[in-house]
Amino acid sequence: MAGNTFGENFKITTFGESHGAAVGVIVDGVTPGVEIDEPYIQIQMDRRKPGQSSVTSPRKEYDRINIMSGVFEGKTTGTPLFIMLHNTDMKPEAYNDIQHSFRPGHADYTYLMKYGIRDHRGSGRASGRETAGRVAAGAVARKLLEHRGVSVVAYTKQIGGIRCVTFDEQVIEQNPVRACDLDAAARMVEKIEYLSSVGDSCGGIVECRIRGVRPGIGEPVFDKLDAELAKAMLSIGAIKGIEFGAGFAAADMLGSEHNDQMNSTGFLTNNAGGIVGGISNGEEIVFRVAVKPTSSITVPQQTMNIAGKEQTIVTEGRHDPCICPRIIPVVEAMACIVLEDQLKRQAAMHDR
Amino acid sequence: MAGNTFGENFKITTFGESHGAAVGVIVDGVTPGVEIDEPYIQIQMDRRKPGQSSVTSPRKEYDRINIMSGVFEGKTTGTPLFIMLHNTDMKPEAYNDIQHSFRPGHADYTYLMKYGIRDHRGSGRASGRETAGRVAAGAVARKLLEHRGVSVVAYTKQIGGIRCVTFDEQVIEQNPVRACDLDAAARMVEKIEYLSSVGDSCGGIVECRIRGVRPGIGEPVFDKLDAELAKAMLSIGAIKGIEFGAGFAAADMLGSEHNDQMNSTGFLTNNAGGIVGGISNGEEIVFRVAVKPTSSITVPQQTMNIAGKEQTIVTEGRHDPCICPRIIPVVEAMACIVLEDQLKRQAAMHDR
Amino acid sequence: MAGNTFGENFKITTFGESHGAAVGVIVDGVTPGVEIDEPYIQIQMDRRKPGQSSVTSPRKEYDRINIMSGVFEGKTTGTPLFIMLHNTDMKPEAYNDIQHSFRPGHADYTYLMKYGIRDHRGSGRASGRETAGRVAAGAVARKLLEHRGVSVVAYTKQIGGIRCVTFDEQVIEQNPVRACDLDAAARMVEKIEYLSSVGDSCGGIVECRIRGVRPGIGEPVFDKLDAELAKAMLSIGAIKGIEFGAGFAAADMLGSEHNDQMNSTGFLTNNAGGIVGGISNGEEIVFRVAVKPTSSITVPQQTMNIAGKEQTIVTEGRHDPCICPRIIPVVEAMACIVLEDQLKRQAAMHDR
Amino acid sequence: MAGNTFGENFKITTFGESHGAAVGVIVDGVTPGVEIDEPYIQIQMDRRKPGQSSVTSPRKEYDRINIMSGVFEGKTTGTPLFIMLHNTDMKPEAYNDIQHSFRPGHADYTYLMKYGIRDHRGSGRASGRETAGRVAAGAVARKLLEHRGVSVVAYTKQIGGIRCVTFDEQVIEQNPVRACDLDAAARMVEKIEYLSSVGDSCGGIVECRIRGVRPGIGEPVFDKLDAELAKAMLSIGAIKGIEFGAGFAAADMLGSEHNDQMNSTGFLTNNAGGIVGGISNGEEIVFRVAVKPTSSITVPQQTMNIAGKEQTIVTEGRHDPCICPRIIPVVEAMACIVLEDQLKRQAAMHDR
Repeated sequence: MAGNTFGENFKITTFGESHGAAVGVIVDGVTPGVEIDEPYIQIQMDRRKPGQSSVTSPRKEYDRINIMSGVFEGKTTGTPLFIMLHNTDMKPEAYNDIQHSFRPGHADYTYLMKYGIRDHRGSGRASGRETAGRVAAGAVARKLLEHRGVSVVAYTKQIGGIRCVTFDEQVIEQNPVRACDLDAAARMVEKIEYLSSVGDSCGGIVECRIRGVRPGIGEPVFDKLDAELAKAMLSIGAIKGIEFGAGFAAADMLGSEHNDQMNSTGFLTNNAGGIVGGISNGEEIVFRVAVKPTSSITVPQQTMNIAGKEQTIVTEGRHDPCICPRIIPVVEAMACIVLEDQLKRQAAMHDR
Repeated sequence: MAGNTFGENFKITTFGESHGAAVGVIVDGVTPGVEIDEPYIQIQMDRRKPGQSSVTSPRKEYDRINIMSGVFEGKTTGTPLFIMLHNTDMKPEAYNDIQHSFRPGHADYTYLMKYGIRDHRGSGRASGRETAGRVAAGAVARKLLEHRGVSVVAYTKQIGGIRCVTFDEQVIEQNPVRACDLDAAARMVEKIEYLSSVGDSCGGIVECRIRGVRPGIGEPVFDKLDAELAKAMLSIGAIKGIEFGAGFAAADMLGSEHNDQMNSTGFLTNNAGGIVGGISNGEEIVFRVAVKPTSSITVPQQTMNIAGKEQTIVTEGRHDPCICPRIIPVVEAMACIVLEDQLKRQAAMHDR
Repeated sequence: MAGNTFGENFKITTFGESHGAAVGVIVDGVTPGVEIDEPYIQIQMDRRKPGQSSVTSPRKEYDRINIMSGVFEGKTTGTPLFIMLHNTDMKPEAYNDIQHSFRPGHADYTYLMKYGIRDHRGSGRASGRETAGRVAAGAVARKLLEHRGVSVVAYTKQIGGIRCVTFDEQVIEQNPVRACDLDAAARMVEKIEYLSSVGDSCGGIVECRIRGVRPGIGEPVFDKLDAELAKAMLSIGAIKGIEFGAGFAAADMLGSEHNDQMNSTGFLTNNAGGIVGGISNGEEIVFRVAVKPTSSITVPQQTMNIAGKEQTIVTEGRHDPCICPRIIPVVEAMACIVLEDQLKRQAAMHDR
Repeated sequence: MAGNTFGENFKITTFGESHGAAVGVIVDGVTPGVEIDEPYIQIQMDRRKPGQSSVTSPRKEYDRINIMSGVFEGKTTGTPLFIMLHNTDMKPEAYNDIQHSFRPGHADYTYLMKYGIRDHRGSGRASGRETAGRVAAGAVARKLLEHRGVSVVAYTKQIGGIRCVTFDEQVIEQNPVRACDLDAAARMVEKIEYLSSVGDSCGGIVECRIRGVRPGIGEPVFDKLDAELAKAMLSIGAIKGIEFGAGFAAADMLGSEHNDQMNSTGFLTNNAGGIVGGISNGEEIVFRVAVKPTSSITVPQQTMNIAGKEQTIVTEGRHDPCICPRIIPVVEAMACIVLEDQLKRQAAMHDR
């Protein structure tokens, strides 16, 4: 099956390359009769767009979305929403140098091996620009989840070895790295700016919390809630790992420590991260993803070109020295899409 | 979509509860004309079955598989393989005590919340017994991968805080915890036996290496190779996280450290774990999964029963104090299934 | 995608060859908490089995089904139902003669061309025996539809050029050809017995009526209710066409004749067959399928063998001279499966 | 699963309403490295567009397509093709009268029942305009099939009771009804013009022939070639039936007549229509579809409005008095999509 569709009952299909005419998404299975408009979606787009601060790429993508179908007189009709963004501020000539080279960390080599042909301009389909469609679709899912009382929030937990100590949800959107700890945030910004000045980049960890999901959501044995979230997250470029609740730390715990005991009011701990047996247990769903350092750096690196000749490469261009701040709305979007899909599947199973 | 089917062009559908009549799998999309027989599959079943050593459950499941369709005169016919295991050595009465209680760490509560009804005997569908069908299907995929020169091996990397220092593939099947380091293995066994004696359990980390996958396998942007592997792994009960290559350690690395540079003979490092942009790059594919400690322990724990009354529970039964040794064939099986499916998808895309 | 799975939210996967060990089905997405038992399903199996009368095959398939999972204490659990039938009364040696020949009308040639290998015994996977799993799954769907007030009934409309004139639903199960007109039925039986005596066979038309489906069911633009029913029906061997409502007769009608006008109590006619724009309109859903004459005849026919050598063939064996009576429960089963699936999809779309 | 996606390995997803901003399609799974350009696709669009002759709607839809992604330097890249058509020449005010009424034969009533909301302008999503995306995607499939030596041609067989007697493929595109018999075509045009003058409409039969498909294509038991074609065709508005080869006439044939006998050079007849057991047999694939008379007529008809009040309605607007000529490219497009998808599936199955 071709791989650009995600979800079953709530389903998205994306298209678009970095330097093609447009990127966008078809969202199918949208509940009819729900009020939605472009400004609501635009809010999420603006969180993803470059140029938001000193720590993000200075590119000026004009991420203005248009809803081209599926909405009538301000309400969804149940037919597919098509949401498009025209590509602007493209500088394809900036990529001429790397046309015949494989940039380390980029998908240049693997795309060429897979398809036998490659749109090299701005990484083509492998560009982060591809996620614009996901964020637009995620905003639609988020609107549906709002009606259900479900909220999804992601934030930077760690960047460049600097870890958040406190958790204050209020500050997340008030610092350029979207960290949950202002002190840590300041040090993260400092580190990113330094790395940017020397042409290097760094990675980090993003955490996501989902609240308001009732117990019982998830589809064993293969489409478990954590399995679907894992697929959704690992489908995002730059994400190299995911863990739920205690996650990898569970490897060092005893059963008597890890098991979440209950009393009559609910669970006493949340080592499971809100999912047991692949099904939500009513607690907060918590997961973390590992974000690799941005591949584009101006530090000279060794590589080979298409002809197999060795060369030293410097990846010029306008890149984010750390992708965490901008990956956060993508993480949230994919989580929203998984949840809306799974909630609809639960409804289907119980319908009688 | 109902959740008990996995894969597209190579597709498995499983059924069965721990204490029902049988468990098994339908494997669809099998390449026709391939020699396969029951003993070949049985080898993998025997690696998964309980009672293999002092560190696994003493239950005597007679995991004898039968191929009931799809093979004719020793060769696959291209029609669905149906592989079944009858359930034996069941002691449903052993579960009478927990019929009305929610065991901490188990899916008792979430299954009841999801379905409104629960087969409590031996955890029902949420039992590890469910994975028998996966292992049988994985053996079929493994056979097809053998013809392609692809091999998949998983092993214990860490148990109860004890980490393998050396890597010796030859010793994996020669120690009861399937660790890649005999010294570490000895200490792991000791620790598990101790924990077993006090009624507790522990978790660990399993690593998987896949060799022989040519560059170009994986289906961006949603069905990326790592995304599919992540879903497959997180669909296994007890697995709470996955990371590829450098994984979570990438969060603390610089771009100049993490990027895998190339020379004319290939990549100089493998921080990516063999997958870039969701597509194999020809290097060894490496990932690790976090395995939580077994939920069934005899240490008394606090819980509530179906009526909402608080109680203290002790989970009797014949359980593995650490599930790592027996989860390894399941990890390998799911990896085989993902790879065979993705290889077939690549063939479909390029067919002309 | 492998082709032995049908449906999305209510999903069936079948396996099995005519002369393998067993045939059966996994039914996934079953509403939990519904009472179902083997005798209920057996009723439908018995309508499909051979040897019911002078006009059906005298083979003695012991079509006894077993529910092997997914039911606990008499109720569905929401986990997959696995239903199996062991194959008995097999005479594989009866097929030795045709092992190397292509029987006209049979799928011998196409199966060999597709798979490069062929289980020739009793037509293998291409046997009508494959439909046993469908009928079992259809009975599960029928049970769920009963709770919704939906009924599905199919019957012979025409056999061997003899057409039913009257429609009396009560007589359908009381005549061996399951016709809706007893007079026509008598002449049909006479004709079939004559053809059987001379080693020939005949085709017919089966009509299906579905009642109690509320308006609004069907998923444009591709998974329309009629599109899904058409796929389901054409997936049945021997069916070569389908038409809804006025069907092919619509080709000769004017718009002013064909349009179903309305008054305040509903539609005045039902030329649409209950489906407009791919969505149910609340009227009876009516379709007809064309059933080809049974391929197995003892009239000598010209063919070639695997080696490309021409030969004359006589298809011995125990065959139905007209498949209409036994295809009826299969038509009903597939219709039930489509409807339950579509009803669940409607629930998913509107869930909020 | 949401219903606006069709196909597995070659997959299309459409969007768009008649009077929204645009209609279009994402085509996923396209073989990379194939030359394709907009003029090639435009040829098919122009065959579908209104205003081609005296017997089609005089609307001036400017069906100019744009490929917005998935093509680089004139070749497909293996990433999704997005093809869009802006909507123009819309007269939404022309539909004000019918905003609150259910037009007989149209999907007004069923859409409102399904979604609870309806974009009434030009039938919204239920408009024939929706098929523009299908035709664009079909042109992509057609290009891939050309490389395989597969051709697909459909034509009018019958309109308003007038049936083609001869078959001359050369004349199909040279008469306004796309009939295969010029004499019949002239009489068809005459009839349509007369019906148009009195505000009525008529139906017809379209036949499709597919050549060059090698034996072995189709995926039993559910995704058989004829089953997929049947679903594809019945998903087209206005199509009410399909039959393969002898089709409904098979109901009156004997087995000895219907079976296609073979000699060493192949089949002697083609009653099967090129498909046996759901798999192509190498003969020409032949099917016919029943096209209902256009629903929009100015003959006064009885209906009710949304408030349940009875009324007489006259459907003004610019409509085709017979949809056969313009449905032909849609039939071909869907057939191309099914075939390319099935050919890719065969490749996946046999890949090793």
